[in-house]
Amino acid sequence: MSNETVNKRGLNPFLTIPQNSDFSIYNLPFGIFSAPGKGKRAGIAIGEYVVDLADAADEGLFEELDIDHEVFESDVLNEMIALGKPVTNRIRTIVQEALCDEKSLLKSIDGLLVPMENVTMHMPLRVGDYTDFYSSKEHATNVGSMFRDPMNALMPNWKHLPVGYHGRSSSIVVSGTEIQRPNGQILPEGADEPVFAPTERLDFELEVAFVIGKPTMMGEIVNVEEAEDHIFGLMLFNDWSARDIQKWEYRPLGPFLGKSFASTVSPWIVPIEALEPFRVKGPEQNPKPLEYLRTNDKNSFDIQLAASIRPEGSGSETTVCETNFRHLYWSMGQQLVHHTSNGCNIRIGDLMASGTISGPDEGSLGCLLEITQNGSKAITLDSGEKRTWLEDGDRVTLRGFAEKDGIRVGFGESAGKIRINVNVS
Amino acid sequence: MSNETVNKRGLNPFLTIPQNSDFSIYNLPFGIFSAPGKGKRAGIAIGEYVVDLADAADEGLFEELDIDHEVFESDVLNEMIALGKPVTNRIRTIVQEALCDEKSLLKSIDGLLVPMENVTMHMPLRVGDYTDFYSSKEHATNVGSMFRDPMNALMPNWKHLPVGYHGRSSSIVVSGTEIQRPNGQILPEGADEPVFAPTERLDFELEVAFVIGKPTMMGEIVNVEEAEDHIFGLMLFNDWSARDIQKWEYRPLGPFLGKSFASTVSPWIVPIEALEPFRVKGPEQNPKPLEYLRTNDKNSFDIQLAASIRPEGSGSETTVCETNFRHLYWSMGQQLVHHTSNGCNIRIGDLMASGTISGPDEGSLGCLLEITQNGSKAITLDSGEKRTWLEDGDRVTLRGFAEKDGIRVGFGESAGKIRINVNVS
Repeated sequence: MSNETVNKRGLNPFLTIPQNSDFSIYNLPFGIFSAPGKGKRAGIAIGEYVVDLADAADEGLFEELDIDHEVFESDVLNEMIALGKPVTNRIRTIVQEALCDEKSLLKSIDGLLVPMENVTMHMPLRVGDYTDFYSSKEHATNVGSMFRDPMNALMPNWKHLPVGYHGRSSSIVVSGTEIQRPNGQILPEGADEPVFAPTERLDFELEVAFVIGKPTMMGEIVNVEEAEDHIFGLMLFNDWSARDIQKWEYRPLGPFLGKSFASTVSPWIVPIEALEPFRVKGPEQNPKPLEYLRTNDKNSFDIQLAASIRPEGSGSETTVCETNFRHLYWSMGQQLVHHTSNGCNIRIGDLMASGTISGPDEGSLGCLLEITQNGSKAITLDSGEKRTWLEDGDRVTLRGFAEKDGIRVGFGESAGKIRINVNVS
Repeated sequence: MSNETVNKRGLNPFLTIPQNSDFSIYNLPFGIFSAPGKGKRAGIAIGEYVVDLADAADEGLFEELDIDHEVFESDVLNEMIALGKPVTNRIRTIVQEALCDEKSLLKSIDGLLVPMENVTMHMPLRVGDYTDFYSSKEHATNVGSMFRDPMNALMPNWKHLPVGYHGRSSSIVVSGTEIQRPNGQILPEGADEPVFAPTERLDFELEVAFVIGKPTMMGEIVNVEEAEDHIFGLMLFNDWSARDIQKWEYRPLGPFLGKSFASTVSPWIVPIEALEPFRVKGPEQNPKPLEYLRTNDKNSFDIQLAASIRPEGSGSETTVCETNFRHLYWSMGQQLVHHTSNGCNIRIGDLMASGTISGPDEGSLGCLLEITQNGSKAITLDSGEKRTWLEDGDRVTLRGFAEKDGIRVGFGESAGKIRINVNVS
């Protein structure tokens, strides 16, 4: 089953799709939604609507595929993803063809297209393990310069392997979930003893994560040329961070509670196949990586990314970062290959995130730690308020899309507001 | 429902239980087993037998409890554990009473007691997240002395919080699973460039892990006095490590592929209630921990632990470490409280491991890194062979038990052999 139709130009859906919609006829990302009268189920986003895959399957839309409809009625997409790319891509193609067919049952049968304003989106995956990489050279250099030595900002291993660490999967939440400012141990400036207090250095991190769609057995090392076969799709990923907690705890075993209180994903998983038209070469790698990580493929994607902050009660949102996925030094394929290089098995639904994606330009830094130079240089929001770190009520929104030759494929958003706690007195 | 009967002295089971059995009438740990004619199911170990909880439930043994028998027919114990301690402890008490009753259906109905020699044990949990702590002061001091500064071996944070990091849950396997020597990036002594090669510094780590039995919501901080309510039980845990891979990769984000290739648990989960008679006070904590971690309870347990190595083809096993769980500086309760102190949610089946448990005495070091002083001082096994690191064919076995006043409660073993690869030519 080929991917031909999905990326074919000039398709003409019977729905009106706004010009700047992330969810064009060429995207067709998967998510889990509910709506009045509809429990959690799988859907595909199209313009301002969601295709109800569970009901569409019951009406016979996927008759040619011998699929158990339960995969669409699950709380998560893991079982559907487990059908494999030939099936999930065919599902997209069938939906795409139906959306361009005036006689399609998607048009004739009521309730198969649900207006987005009526749906609630849910965490679409059961995440087994979540790994966070550190693959932006600009980010690693900026952080290394601030906390170690500007002349030796990158550790000696950095250009030889995609540095990464294990993160917490239980606290990954879907866009829209409020974020509780975490407490933790913090060593106040100049003090000898830590205190236990709410973080004063709450930050976001603009990242993109990919979803494992094909598992491996323990001991199986993925070949770099086949790595993308294991990638189902991509999501925006906000790796919320408490810099003061992180600073005190992280030596010698790495970040822990400064990160594990929450991470926010965008609700729609954009299949890697939908990003094919936006494929580009990543940055030159020098020194050349070792054989098992070496590839000449165009293994990156031109995806524009942005982060914005909107303070509580403000109508205006300020873009604080504009960057691009293509800046990442290590590709997703290299990350995945390296991850399996010791025989570690991967499972469907595992998430691997990029690490903060900073770019080379001013305005392209992917977290407040870098933007405000560790809190030393406040930024002014459009509302006139100043920020070094996030304040209660701030809403952080990540957005991302790829666009070329009139085709737009976007991610929607990953948004989270820092909860305002009402004091009980 | 009380725990009275389970720890009552002088019980007289109708089965003959060997004097030194880990699985006395006072233990009754849970596991998942299969046997000829029996698919995966829950069981309780007793002497040289396993009580088939699925079939016993069908025969009416747990009639007084209104339980869906499916919890015993699952591949994992998560759903049974989710019933809560009052139910799972009552299950143990019912089994204990039945095992001491000549007229019990466990005696009269064939096939409810399965000889251990006929069963295969399986991974008993679906582990959501696995966290590894670093809670042995002796281990952290030894490692800090070797790699950093003997005068400042412990990081400034170490005595203020239980240092920990996230580990990989996909590669946790049950005792008996062969371990593949991992490949990885290694920086050879004196070299500038890494190579990709099989580890030459393969190690074990003697640890104990606890299983979360009661979940929390995001934002919920567990009170230190209630921490043990969330602990279902304990298992032996071998955190296999590749020291050369770890050394090259771990800065600045902590251990990753040097650990994630495999960890081995013992198959039986010993409920924390079974360890009640062995409760002791842990080491004095100085400085006093911050309020949220402070407790005067006897929050440790006197559990004797050992690790041994048996080379391929050798009949003799050499004990290379004898230590005790009570040496741990930070208690399980403190680890758990700290873990939730930032609002991070925990889920049933999550594992939290202690970190390597070294003791103060010679012979009580919990990994080869410490025993051989980073490979500089070989040990001689009973077979006459020398070891600095593990060799192919070596079988590492962890054992543990508590014993007092004639009551013995043991863990069985966590064993794993380093696979010998046959070259295909």
